[in-house]
Amino acid sequence: MARTTGSDGEKTEAAVREAAVNLIARLGYEAMSMRQLAAEVGVQAAALYRYFPTKEDLLFTLMREHMEGLLAAWSTARPAAADPVSRLAAYVENHIAFHIERRHATHVSNMELRSLSHERLTQVLKMRTAYEKELRTILRDGVEAGVFSIDDTGLTAMALIQMMTGVIVWFRPGERLSVTEVTTTYLSMTMRLVGAKIDASSAARPFGRVTDAVAL
Amino acid sequence: MARTTGSDGEKTEAAVREAAVNLIARLGYEAMSMRQLAAEVGVQAAALYRYFPTKEDLLFTLMREHMEGLLAAWSTARPAAADPVSRLAAYVENHIAFHIERRHATHVSNMELRSLSHERLTQVLKMRTAYEKELRTILRDGVEAGVFSIDDTGLTAMALIQMMTGVIVWFRPGERLSVTEVTTTYLSMTMRLVGAKIDASSAARPFGRVTDAVAL
Repeated sequence: MARTTGSDGEKTEAAVREAAVNLIARLGYEAMSMRQLAAEVGVQAAALYRYFPTKEDLLFTLMREHMEGLLAAWSTARPAAADPVSRLAAYVENHIAFHIERRHATHVSNMELRSLSHERLTQVLKMRTAYEKELRTILRDGVEAGVFSIDDTGLTAMALIQMMTGVIVWFRPGERLSVTEVTTTYLSMTMRLVGAKIDASSAARPFGRVTDAVAL
Repeated sequence: MARTTGSDGEKTEAAVREAAVNLIARLGYEAMSMRQLAAEVGVQAAALYRYFPTKEDLLFTLMREHMEGLLAAWSTARPAAADPVSRLAAYVENHIAFHIERRHATHVSNMELRSLSHERLTQVLKMRTAYEKELRTILRDGVEAGVFSIDDTGLTAMALIQMMTGVIVWFRPGERLSVTEVTTTYLSMTMRLVGAKIDASSAARPFGRVTDAVAL
């Protein structure tokens, strides 16, 4: 399949993705037509198929890139230090910052898995599992180091991820709380939930990275 | 609008609702047609309009009844005792039990708000706010009684609700954990998250109602 390259093609492809995320978030994937998407972007429907031969190719691209972006963001944010409290704090900060910036893409990624083919669903779920495993490893390391007190590592990881992703349901920039304030409160809830033992020196400035990491 | 009453009509209406919840959960509301729904139930499309004059009437009915059911379940489960720890435990148990039993209806209620008219959206959101307020009141009472340690009551309520509702994403009956085991772990996470001070006597059987309340 020939692909349009160069700056104009890339701009069109980026515009298609952005419009698709917004249309799917508004209507749902099944209800969105490629014709409607083309009209939104201002191109002929045939032009869309140069970038995405099928509608499912488009959905899969959006979902794969969402997960690749999340894994890449975490790979950058992950601290070199082995201390489980710092690693958990970095995970929370990165997770909230990433999802608040991609509210519609997160809705699409969470709601439209049902429309992927079996093979592609497996690919996306593998990336999710890899990302969740990072959190489970941090939690397990913290338990082994005696700094976390957790009943069930798997359930705690799911609970934390759903609690954090839930921020996008109600958070709107410019309202009562800033991203930094929200993140500080979620860090504090997370540390209590995992029964973190934080020493006096770190308690004074418990999660010092917050203001840097969440400067959006 | 004349409505079919009596047992056959009621059975058809119940079948329509059940089929609608499943179809909307699978396809999305915008993508579902009344014709498709009628075929699923095995009636003529015209028959559907006797029960639900418009597709949006159907959606609104599903959402309103979901929230009415949740408020009614909580009204029954709410303990007479004033103790905030027991009230919070009862809220968690009821929330998890209710949503695990209504996985598809919960998805529909959370995802399809975008398709309600402004007036009906307001009605549904009012019921949600009333339900969330119950939790905020428990949390505030606990802080005032000195048994909970919470930074932000509003954020904590949202975090808890999203953490608990998230159970439906991964929980399937008959897998590794029972509803009772899941609920016990979520109770323990909740109590840690709110910094609950639980005395020795209640710690021995900390959330004793669990096995009764969650007998599904």
